[in-house]
Amino acid sequence: MLDPDDETDVGGRPVRSRPVDLDAFFRPSSVAVIGASDTPGRPNTGITRQLAAWAERVGARMYPVNPGRTEVDGRPCYPDLASVPVAGGEPVDLAVILLADPEPVVPQLIEAKVKFAVAFASGFAETGAEGAEAQRRLARLIAEAPTGLRLLGPNTNLNAFERFREDLTGPAIALITQSGHQGRPLFSLQSLGIRLSHWAPTGNEADLEVADFVRWFADQPEVGAIAAYIEGLKDGRAFLLAADHAARRGVPVVAVKVGRTREGARMAASHTGKLTGADDVVDAAFRQFGVIRVDGLDELQDTAALLARARPPQADGVAVYSISGGTGAHLADLASMAGLTMPRLSEQKQDELHQWIPEYLSVANPIDNGGHPVGDWRGRRILDAILADPSVGVLICPITGPFPPMSDKLAQDLVEVAETTDKLVCVVWGSPDGTEDAYRQTLLGSSRVATFRTFGNCVRAVAAYLEHHRFVAGYRSPFEHAPRTPCAGKVKAQRVLRPGQQLSEVAAKQLLRSYGLRVPREQLVTSAAGAVRAAGVVGYPVVLKGSAPEVAHKTELGLVHVGLTSASQVREAFRELTDNARAAGIPRLEGVLVCQMVEAGVEMVIGVTQDPSFGPTVTVGMGGVLVEVLADTAVMVPPFDCLDVRAALDRLRCRPLLDGVRGGPPMDLDALVEAVLRVQRMAVELDGELAELDINPLMVLERGKGVVALDALAVCR
Amino acid sequence: MLDPDDETDVGGRPVRSRPVDLDAFFRPSSVAVIGASDTPGRPNTGITRQLAAWAERVGARMYPVNPGRTEVDGRPCYPDLASVPVAGGEPVDLAVILLADPEPVVPQLIEAKVKFAVAFASGFAETGAEGAEAQRRLARLIAEAPTGLRLLGPNTNLNAFERFREDLTGPAIALITQSGHQGRPLFSLQSLGIRLSHWAPTGNEADLEVADFVRWFADQPEVGAIAAYIEGLKDGRAFLLAADHAARRGVPVVAVKVGRTREGARMAASHTGKLTGADDVVDAAFRQFGVIRVDGLDELQDTAALLARARPPQADGVAVYSISGGTGAHLADLASMAGLTMPRLSEQKQDELHQWIPEYLSVANPIDNGGHPVGDWRGRRILDAILADPSVGVLICPITGPFPPMSDKLAQDLVEVAETTDKLVCVVWGSPDGTEDAYRQTLLGSSRVATFRTFGNCVRAVAAYLEHHRFVAGYRSPFEHAPRTPCAGKVKAQRVLRPGQQLSEVAAKQLLRSYGLRVPREQLVTSAAGAVRAAGVVGYPVVLKGSAPEVAHKTELGLVHVGLTSASQVREAFRELTDNARAAGIPRLEGVLVCQMVEAGVEMVIGVTQDPSFGPTVTVGMGGVLVEVLADTAVMVPPFDCLDVRAALDRLRCRPLLDGVRGGPPMDLDALVEAVLRVQRMAVELDGELAELDINPLMVLERGKGVVALDALAVCR
Repeated sequence: MLDPDDETDVGGRPVRSRPVDLDAFFRPSSVAVIGASDTPGRPNTGITRQLAAWAERVGARMYPVNPGRTEVDGRPCYPDLASVPVAGGEPVDLAVILLADPEPVVPQLIEAKVKFAVAFASGFAETGAEGAEAQRRLARLIAEAPTGLRLLGPNTNLNAFERFREDLTGPAIALITQSGHQGRPLFSLQSLGIRLSHWAPTGNEADLEVADFVRWFADQPEVGAIAAYIEGLKDGRAFLLAADHAARRGVPVVAVKVGRTREGARMAASHTGKLTGADDVVDAAFRQFGVIRVDGLDELQDTAALLARARPPQADGVAVYSISGGTGAHLADLASMAGLTMPRLSEQKQDELHQWIPEYLSVANPIDNGGHPVGDWRGRRILDAILADPSVGVLICPITGPFPPMSDKLAQDLVEVAETTDKLVCVVWGSPDGTEDAYRQTLLGSSRVATFRTFGNCVRAVAAYLEHHRFVAGYRSPFEHAPRTPCAGKVKAQRVLRPGQQLSEVAAKQLLRSYGLRVPREQLVTSAAGAVRAAGVVGYPVVLKGSAPEVAHKTELGLVHVGLTSASQVREAFRELTDNARAAGIPRLEGVLVCQMVEAGVEMVIGVTQDPSFGPTVTVGMGGVLVEVLADTAVMVPPFDCLDVRAALDRLRCRPLLDGVRGGPPMDLDALVEAVLRVQRMAVELDGELAELDINPLMVLERGKGVVALDALAVCR
Repeated sequence: MLDPDDETDVGGRPVRSRPVDLDAFFRPSSVAVIGASDTPGRPNTGITRQLAAWAERVGARMYPVNPGRTEVDGRPCYPDLASVPVAGGEPVDLAVILLADPEPVVPQLIEAKVKFAVAFASGFAETGAEGAEAQRRLARLIAEAPTGLRLLGPNTNLNAFERFREDLTGPAIALITQSGHQGRPLFSLQSLGIRLSHWAPTGNEADLEVADFVRWFADQPEVGAIAAYIEGLKDGRAFLLAADHAARRGVPVVAVKVGRTREGARMAASHTGKLTGADDVVDAAFRQFGVIRVDGLDELQDTAALLARARPPQADGVAVYSISGGTGAHLADLASMAGLTMPRLSEQKQDELHQWIPEYLSVANPIDNGGHPVGDWRGRRILDAILADPSVGVLICPITGPFPPMSDKLAQDLVEVAETTDKLVCVVWGSPDGTEDAYRQTLLGSSRVATFRTFGNCVRAVAAYLEHHRFVAGYRSPFEHAPRTPCAGKVKAQRVLRPGQQLSEVAAKQLLRSYGLRVPREQLVTSAAGAVRAAGVVGYPVVLKGSAPEVAHKTELGLVHVGLTSASQVREAFRELTDNARAAGIPRLEGVLVCQMVEAGVEMVIGVTQDPSFGPTVTVGMGGVLVEVLADTAVMVPPFDCLDVRAALDRLRCRPLLDGVRGGPPMDLDALVEAVLRVQRMAVELDGELAELDINPLMVLERGKGVVALDALAVCR
């Protein structure tokens, strides 16, 4: 949850989140169950009993509340919250509302100073406009509660009150889901020996949202990783601040975010009533703040389990060790595809391995042992030797088929060697059956070995693990130095803006200038003679462009004439251009721009668009007339810094153009980065006023010569 | 195996493959085991016994051969093959060679007219140059055998002689692997109730190769799908012919092909000594001939199992049905990503479903039942209603977590409804445990329900299933009409070729002209005066280009001057250009080309390169100076037809340019397709003579105006 009293950036968005202390939610001293029942066959009876069992496990006193009875399952039942005799006069920590309409009881909760409430009822934003209005009313009641009451739900469920295995130790996964059914496979990981500490089913998020749980889980010592299933983000900034907090704490967040496609986004909206913007914006936000995005629940399980339990890497190199050359080759192929590096082992190390592995097998990495050595004492020696190599931080051993004489011993050796090292030991148990003892007893019995079922999930999880630790090591929070006061150009820029309108090219360029972005020398003229005079001042060759608000695609309308080298050409162009404007029916041509001709650069584009979750976003990409066809762009979510811009540029296919093509000079990358940062500043400061900006082309000149915005299109809110 | 006596195309490559009748290999009447043993503890003893058991199962008589003994495990043993008293004087069908060096026994095999031999010995191409030479000797011996002896191996194993489950019925998977260990998970599918009929472990492929087995398996009535694990293709054309045969028969081939990355290709080479070319060529070959490429062994299992068993689709629409809206949204998202279409159900159908599903839940597709209806009689009604919808060909029901009161009944209903329909019923059992009865007994017990463990594998397999049937329905073999005689231009073209050299632009354009490709009006001149005269003939504006063999990147050397509109400009350009050539130290400028200036088109590129497996390949892509940076190209493997070219063009990011950009006219797509086909003809006919060709740019003009090759670079072998 965002605290409006905290500091905000120049756009008015918070740069700090206020943590919610969820301890009283997950470990309450007292729980009131409103609508408790013990009538056989009623759903509320089952729920009441599950809550009673949970309360006992966490050491909470449970108080049934129901005006219709005096006793529930042998416990005294109270007519209302006010009657609940909490020990020491303390307020109730947690009230669970089993009623079909939670709204009427909220005043009671506030009156009784309850800390947390949970509402299971459905029929809110997920059902349409009427439900959305009911949800807004509920949210308002909670937000205005003077007692600090917080609510989970509505449309949530009992997942937070499940029975977790308590015999499992070590770092755990904390789970956040916007759908109970979707969290079930992660919960079931406990049957494979993987510890889960919490489950927050956030439902419709009238109040508490994913971000609140991310933030709090990141502070819990038992949490090794946070896994989330997300359909929509209630508040993009709140999520970024929570992810920022987790990144600073070094706690990995792994998430499935539905909405890769329009179809998925539409369905997600109808499920929990959450909207979602462009998917590449989600990708960008996640990337900038180190949230690891996966697509399947199986990947969510495998990646979260690995990240929760593995110690930080001692080296980035991956060694692949197998009883079959084919298996090693295949895994190596997929590992390279996932971006992993497999260092070639030194000749010395190879000689060492060849003590136990026949000479004709390749042990350079992947290491092919040919099978037999794993069956005896040599197996363990080989593993020790590989893990002792300083270039190796991760060992992956794919066992595609169980062959007990070899695979049972190999599994046992792997489990044993994993106890002796801080390096990561991964096994892929490829048998589709999965009932074998070597898998279920030996491998899953170890919390030091990371066991996977597919090559793909293993290499992707290992890549995420290495990337997470690289990210955390280099992380600098962009909120630390987010500007708090507007820059000097803001007032100048605001003078140019015209609410609801698209600006003329001249006005859009003034906007750019006010934020220190360079535009060509140019003059606005209204006569052919004026154009010739202007050309003399600007310097030949010149470009003539018709300038008017609300006009895009000037080239297609014949409103641009380039490469004019003489007064007569300028005069003729002026005439044609005004004729074309008339022919195109353009109502008010405010004049003709006579511009300096800028050539010999790389055409890029910088844009600003609005995202429903994250607000203004900044896009950089290949510019020119092909921009729409090639769609070679990368988006960034403010706040971002120069490293984020460089990373975004590195993702562009056109990136090599900036280094110079075919022996040409390198382009002014620094100036391009600076221009993107200035656009970010503008987008953030004018958030609410500027709807859309498109600088195309932005000509990037040779290194040291800067960038020039040749054209720009701006739309005001 | 290719039969050189069969018809060949204009490049001399076969257009028919000669099938190998592998019946005597998989179901022999007689098996000789050369090197048979019963000495306790010797590896050959285990192998002999496994072969004896297999022979008994398939009804073959087994003959141990070993000069050192008279009896093996109670069977009479023979000193050599000649002494084996085969019933009826028939030759031995299959000889399995257990010796460390199979070569010396090959003459015996030929003498005894043995049909098939298997060599397990390793130490051949997989070990380096010496082994490769030994393998070539072995291959030659077999190829020259007058008796038609065929060999599996060397470096193969016992996989073909495994014990297959015989209680499973219905269409089976036939498996081909170049690594035994990598086939093990597929073999294990039998424990999940999926039938396997054959396993061909092809090892080093001195003789029999993957293609031979693909071809034969496609003809076996019990084979529903062919699954292959491939590290390298011995002969690309043989593989295409086999895939063509499978496509005509409608039998799906699903393959993992290692070599997505250079690392993987290198490892594969060191494993079975097979080389592999560019990975996009493999992709193209597979796509053109309908081979379904997957990356993981898990996908290979899931996709092959589905394709083997599912009946042809009755509609392409996919319905997603779940007990949770979140699950439906997530699956729908991944399904769209995989290219599946989810038709919106009609209002009438939705009304029907709302008889059993609460009104507030969305049943438009995905269909969210909210959970409860699956627990009673309504569950089955809903399934029947969905499957009765004519727009639905596939039902996917994801069950992410087992909740026995619901999921057991749902699983049972799904199994029962699947028996009543020819439509495809898929279930994703998302629990990571996989020991639940509903999964192992109910779902896996049905051969009509396709059961998956992950959303990703399910949607990708369903996409492959629909695509396979679309492909087969529209398949036209390109071998049917492959040209058998060279076209008239070939002789003209050959006159231009200069072995081992790069041709001058003038010569390269002659090459193009000889295959009917249009080039600009142009003249080669050697003086400024000549240039001015030529410009008059060609017509202003003109381009001047220095022409010399062995020169690429003419623009960067100052050897191209464009847009010359007057005699004086031509004279000046000629002078500058010859100066620049001197300055660049170009030995022999054969003259200056005065060319017609062609503008107002889309610049494309067409290229020819050589692939070690497939021979010449043809590439089409975005042209111009950005070609290397943007790498927007698609490759095709001959033989291909105009539909393949159109499909390749459709994969280009620049594809929309050809439809006209921002209201511009559409370009001459037909002429572009025709040009690519002409280049294919040239590449195939001049295979062995033309090493490389690069037409860049090929200017595609407005529709009806054709294409013009503005520049070309050709390298001869």
